[in-house]
Amino acid sequence: MKDEPKELQELRHRLGEIRDLHRASAVLSWDQQTYMPPGGAVARAEQLATLQRTAHVWFISDEIGQLLEALRAPAAEWDYDSDEASLVRVTLRDYEKARRIPPALVAELARASTLAYEAWTKAKAAADFAIFLPHLEKIVDLNIQIAEALGYQDRLYDALLDQYEPDMKTAQVATLFENLKAELVPLVKTIASQTRLGNDAILRRPMDIQKQWDFGLAILRDMGFDFNRGRQDKSVHPFTTAFSIDDVRLTTRLDPNYFPTALFGTIHEGGHGLYEQGLAKTLERTGLDDGASLGIHESQSRLWENLIGRSQAFWYHYFPRLQQMFPEQMGDVDFEDFYQAINAVKPTFIRVEADEVTYNLHIMIRFELENDMLERRVHIRELPEAWNAKMEEYLGIVPPNDALGVLQDVHWSGGMLGYFPTYSLGNLYSVQFFDQAKRDISGLADQIATGHFSELLDWLRQNIHRHGRKYTPAELVARVTGNELTAKNYIDYIKQKFGELYAL
Amino acid sequence: MKDEPKELQELRHRLGEIRDLHRASAVLSWDQQTYMPPGGAVARAEQLATLQRTAHVWFISDEIGQLLEALRAPAAEWDYDSDEASLVRVTLRDYEKARRIPPALVAELARASTLAYEAWTKAKAAADFAIFLPHLEKIVDLNIQIAEALGYQDRLYDALLDQYEPDMKTAQVATLFENLKAELVPLVKTIASQTRLGNDAILRRPMDIQKQWDFGLAILRDMGFDFNRGRQDKSVHPFTTAFSIDDVRLTTRLDPNYFPTALFGTIHEGGHGLYEQGLAKTLERTGLDDGASLGIHESQSRLWENLIGRSQAFWYHYFPRLQQMFPEQMGDVDFEDFYQAINAVKPTFIRVEADEVTYNLHIMIRFELENDMLERRVHIRELPEAWNAKMEEYLGIVPPNDALGVLQDVHWSGGMLGYFPTYSLGNLYSVQFFDQAKRDISGLADQIATGHFSELLDWLRQNIHRHGRKYTPAELVARVTGNELTAKNYIDYIKQKFGELYAL
Repeated sequence: MKDEPKELQELRHRLGEIRDLHRASAVLSWDQQTYMPPGGAVARAEQLATLQRTAHVWFISDEIGQLLEALRAPAAEWDYDSDEASLVRVTLRDYEKARRIPPALVAELARASTLAYEAWTKAKAAADFAIFLPHLEKIVDLNIQIAEALGYQDRLYDALLDQYEPDMKTAQVATLFENLKAELVPLVKTIASQTRLGNDAILRRPMDIQKQWDFGLAILRDMGFDFNRGRQDKSVHPFTTAFSIDDVRLTTRLDPNYFPTALFGTIHEGGHGLYEQGLAKTLERTGLDDGASLGIHESQSRLWENLIGRSQAFWYHYFPRLQQMFPEQMGDVDFEDFYQAINAVKPTFIRVEADEVTYNLHIMIRFELENDMLERRVHIRELPEAWNAKMEEYLGIVPPNDALGVLQDVHWSGGMLGYFPTYSLGNLYSVQFFDQAKRDISGLADQIATGHFSELLDWLRQNIHRHGRKYTPAELVARVTGNELTAKNYIDYIKQKFGELYAL
Repeated sequence: MKDEPKELQELRHRLGEIRDLHRASAVLSWDQQTYMPPGGAVARAEQLATLQRTAHVWFISDEIGQLLEALRAPAAEWDYDSDEASLVRVTLRDYEKARRIPPALVAELARASTLAYEAWTKAKAAADFAIFLPHLEKIVDLNIQIAEALGYQDRLYDALLDQYEPDMKTAQVATLFENLKAELVPLVKTIASQTRLGNDAILRRPMDIQKQWDFGLAILRDMGFDFNRGRQDKSVHPFTTAFSIDDVRLTTRLDPNYFPTALFGTIHEGGHGLYEQGLAKTLERTGLDDGASLGIHESQSRLWENLIGRSQAFWYHYFPRLQQMFPEQMGDVDFEDFYQAINAVKPTFIRVEADEVTYNLHIMIRFELENDMLERRVHIRELPEAWNAKMEEYLGIVPPNDALGVLQDVHWSGGMLGYFPTYSLGNLYSVQFFDQAKRDISGLADQIATGHFSELLDWLRQNIHRHGRKYTPAELVARVTGNELTAKNYIDYIKQKFGELYAL
């Protein structure tokens, strides 16, 4: 844009400084989870609080509001897809949301979450929900207040979900999940009644962790992750963060006795990392230099982890390499046995260890219970029973204690309700995007089967990555696939892949 | 203090937030020098600029000024040594200095330094002073303006030196250096005329870098460095930084063919690190949670590196351990040969590679030339000749080119004049402190000879570390030793140690 209005220049300047504080926070959090010695925790909490509070205060300032108001009318005339129009449009949306929540409520949720997190770690260790109960009640109350402050038309949950998945509605999620459930619950029952396929023991042979690390790095390089603009470190819980479009940090963890932990964790985080590295450079320091939503971000990690990393084609290329790197452990393993082992389906208690098919059922339980709590259909003290009932209904198993049930996830203790659905939405987006990529790229399967991913990565960058937060998830899905989000592609994918695997 | 005045509470709150930004900057700088991929540099510069600019703006605010003014009179009645009186006294001094420099001048020096640094790297690579000349002229001009803005009574250099060594005067440094020079220049000439002692080749035997790393860590542990409150990483240029009193980061570098690089680098940084870990916890987040000055900080690193780490007593304990860890390289080495090799004196061109005796002469050259430039006694275009003349006079050698001469150090390109003397002041402080410790701790030499440093560390903490920035260097030296800073202890130390080594 020639002759950018002065207000836009000033807005960019202010958003740039705010983004610097967010990125600095990200560096401090990354260090906290990778290298920080235990003694650093107390001071680090203060430093993060100061950075985050300052970024928030700067963002909700009247000055930002005035600049946005001055730009609202002119920006409506600009090309919708331009960086400039998108900056004004998306920042207005962020600003209006941020201004609606009273700062005192933000502070109260932060305090309550700190206490709730402490209580949750104790409750989980003791498998005693009663320890967590008063804290969860407080978290739910505060989330209701936040939803009321943000406002919503239909469901209270809409306001919370919107924080993580902009413009997505609860009713749409419910419909998608009902469609999924109708197919997945019977499928899981059928599979569970079979003699189990997949020799899990072959995945549990001890493997040198340095070699595991090197194998993962080689795959990341093949995927197109740029190590001049990023790196991988170790952490207890794997995550991806970015300090700039040109500085993207992955972490992984290594289990000497179960190599899929590092292998699929690395590929998963690599998918997130490619998204961050693929943002258009023109978005740097604008606040639009991030994923479109948690669900869209997750679509990229799931696409690489599951649709590619757990596919036959992928292992046509990598299985011989795995055997070469680990001849003692893999030399005698049959390709089909390996492929089945990494795709074994089995109802289990813990979400983060669940397979591709049952995973979504874990999410649905959380989505339904969050709504039941927020809309007061379930007493929170009765949550463990409600949880176990749904586990039995969807997965056919009942956790022996609450540590393996309702207490397993950290999210609620962190004050976050409305977050969980984005994991399953990521699965749905991933297949719908990938189906489109298969239509657009001739010979994609052959490329994957020979370890060539550059055309796919170009496609992802062109269609998804470069846009950052310019479009809502719904806009992006429509642009990329010509359709709205549907469960059909995902269901077809699951039925075909696991139908073959389990000879259904 | 009971019933702390409201203004003091508010001051603490504001200084706490400012300190958070400084500590966050330290994390970003540390990452930049340890783990950051090349692509991260551009965004990192913006992030650091935003954090540092914000910290400066917050600090020089009228609100801080009003709080300090309100506290000036009451604080004068408080116990001088109390945290509260010290906070007001030291912060007032910092504030008044910070307010005197026009923000435009700060910004201009920052811009000029960025360009000067780029030019310096090119000039050094090409050994061509002309490339750096216009930038150094600009840096000197701006430093003169800064000195004028800060104000001074006697010498322009006083104002610049005061930034790094509070209250130290140029005249005092000149006198100390004259005393040193009168002894060191003839000593170096005498030694240089001898057949050289110390078989350097025994230090150049290849050694596994992991074992070098482990040997260094073991020494750090023995020194009392707390790895629950700190860690060591690798970097190109070793440094120490702190993100909190309880999170202190050392770095070292490893040379497979010259183990003294890592060994003495680690001990040196360990000395800095012990200082940071030894600050009183009551100073955390006040801005007084730092060393008293660069010179005092350097006294701690030099004390551990030279007075302990290059002493006979130290190696009585560690030489057998070094031989055990490196039997191939050290098994056949005689103790005396080793001790002489690590204490070899020889005039060389590069300051950072200089030995304990010649090091100070390198510093004097810089101190004298900085004053000559600032007081316009030397044309900057003639600096290389002036440099080489002093090298010949003090060290008896002339650099073959400017990369090995006037262009070797980064400091001027970073805009810093007045910094260099603190290195030699550190040497003087270190011996004066250590002589006092020897008087106060009975059997200290025996403790060192058996690898026991806890009583020494306690002494350092009690007398130096815990005070942080509460006292000026002059106040601290008087408190600890009962005297003002003198070159006598250092000269006696050097004459005795090297007199014995070189049988003079």
